[in-house]
Amino acid sequence: MWQATLLAALLASVSAAADPLPSWNESPAKTAILAFVAKTTTAGSAEFIPPAERIAVFDNDGTLWPENPLPFQVAFALDSLKERLPANPAWKSDPIVQAALKGDLGALLADHDKGLFHVLDLTHAGMTTDEFAASVAAWLKTAQHPRFNRPYDECVYQPMLEVLAYLRSNGFKTYIVSGGGADFMRVWSERVYGIPPEQVVGSNSQTKFEMRSGIPTLVKTSEHLFVDDKAGKPVGIHQFIGRRPAMCFGNSDGDQAMLEYTTIGNPRPSFGLFVHHTDADREYAYDAQPKSSGKLITALAEAPKRGWVVVDMKRDWQTVFAPTSQQ
Amino acid sequence: MWQATLLAALLASVSAAADPLPSWNESPAKTAILAFVAKTTTAGSAEFIPPAERIAVFDNDGTLWPENPLPFQVAFALDSLKERLPANPAWKSDPIVQAALKGDLGALLADHDKGLFHVLDLTHAGMTTDEFAASVAAWLKTAQHPRFNRPYDECVYQPMLEVLAYLRSNGFKTYIVSGGGADFMRVWSERVYGIPPEQVVGSNSQTKFEMRSGIPTLVKTSEHLFVDDKAGKPVGIHQFIGRRPAMCFGNSDGDQAMLEYTTIGNPRPSFGLFVHHTDADREYAYDAQPKSSGKLITALAEAPKRGWVVVDMKRDWQTVFAPTSQQ
Repeated sequence: MWQATLLAALLASVSAAADPLPSWNESPAKTAILAFVAKTTTAGSAEFIPPAERIAVFDNDGTLWPENPLPFQVAFALDSLKERLPANPAWKSDPIVQAALKGDLGALLADHDKGLFHVLDLTHAGMTTDEFAASVAAWLKTAQHPRFNRPYDECVYQPMLEVLAYLRSNGFKTYIVSGGGADFMRVWSERVYGIPPEQVVGSNSQTKFEMRSGIPTLVKTSEHLFVDDKAGKPVGIHQFIGRRPAMCFGNSDGDQAMLEYTTIGNPRPSFGLFVHHTDADREYAYDAQPKSSGKLITALAEAPKRGWVVVDMKRDWQTVFAPTSQQ
Repeated sequence: MWQATLLAALLASVSAAADPLPSWNESPAKTAILAFVAKTTTAGSAEFIPPAERIAVFDNDGTLWPENPLPFQVAFALDSLKERLPANPAWKSDPIVQAALKGDLGALLADHDKGLFHVLDLTHAGMTTDEFAASVAAWLKTAQHPRFNRPYDECVYQPMLEVLAYLRSNGFKTYIVSGGGADFMRVWSERVYGIPPEQVVGSNSQTKFEMRSGIPTLVKTSEHLFVDDKAGKPVGIHQFIGRRPAMCFGNSDGDQAMLEYTTIGNPRPSFGLFVHHTDADREYAYDAQPKSSGKLITALAEAPKRGWVVVDMKRDWQTVFAPTSQQ
């Protein structure tokens, strides 16, 4: 009898230990993730995907961390603008800077984010890549999310961290494919997500190489801008990764094109997932009318037809945020 | 006595089996490669490089395979031009096409390769990425190198294949950083060099994403051209890899900027190497006056000052080419 009890206890502990997604409630989304990985990594399975082709791409803002009340890089740019305003008095007469200082997001996002790119240009271009990385790192050490009262890089979704680790332990190479700036994300992506810089695809402008006092230096410019959003996402995937992903995770219509590229007409098995922000209490609730970016209308309507998994954040996630170092 | 003999035999066999660079003659270059890898991968060494930062970048044309009598992608473009000429009669009145058909390389390379880019545009743009990959693969199956009489993708340097494998077995991530087209190289880089598409950085133009009969499609364009050569190489490394390499291998002045970026002011130990083409019998001999591309003047002059290793192909390589499937 004790043997049966011991066996049951052992099995329960193995089963608990073996749940790679403990922050996910039992749900169709959790089942779908586990089933896809199981069938594509079992040697001999008709749906086996060779390890070299196990590419999984993740949007960042709204998929791995929030994009409210502002995308975090916009918060960084506005803080940089304020910090550097005294040294750049000419900025004060710039109507876009004035709008930014008033927090007028509408003015920044009008005409395809024209004002926002102007602010990014003012605050990012002209710095060396080392200076820029240092300024991002310094900001992350002091800035706090206004609602969650913790550093921005500690506002990451625990369930998605578990998905990243689970996929990697099954031979998937995890990539970020985000509209955010590659140089911004690469400062912390390895530490926070375990995703190294070379697996971060983002918006970017070209740098300029020059020798400064005999030292090779890369200077950020605003030239040759590539916006890694909407149809730019499959373009970025092709340019940076050079193969079609097997799995794609997003949360907005800006991710629809890369989910289409991943899942439609793919000769291999494929998987698409949207995080639906349904949790006003623990995070935010929005889709058609987001407070900042992250509109989710057409992709949500297409999901059933395409077989894309939709995560109901409120229902499917037992925990939203990873533990913070401050509690 | 038999024990000593056995021991000596064992040691000899271990030593032979353990030589990771058997196609290299004993030489300063071989010693330098082995010593750098040993010191940077020994835990506890003051010069240890953490595995995540072990990035090794390789130029392709002239470093991993020849660039004579023409860079191989130029041979491909000229063959494509001839093949597609009957279907594109308007090309016949194009002076650049006429020069290309006559094999007038000077006309193609004048004014910063303007004519060459025009030919690449004619032959590459407008195709889908899948069509382009298929055309490269088909060409490799039939085209032969005019001097070595074997497929172009079998004209690869055996000593460099050994370096690639040796570095990977020591935790280095190997990348191509080449002026050649990324889309051209990615078709065969994994099969030939063991370098997957996502580790190929090359010249590129932007693709255009569109749904064709409901299928996501990427179409090659000539817009947003990025030339991954000279100062473009460190720019490409930053854009695609996002960290400074530990090791850099090139063969021409076009690689000098990326060797500088790798080795000057790098807080970690670093390694730079140039392949000097000194072997007219087995390959080609050139530096200041190459027959096509691959000029090596300033980088050769800088090498002693910078501590860059210079490989004397004739003296240092026991074998030049990997075995061909045709012999």
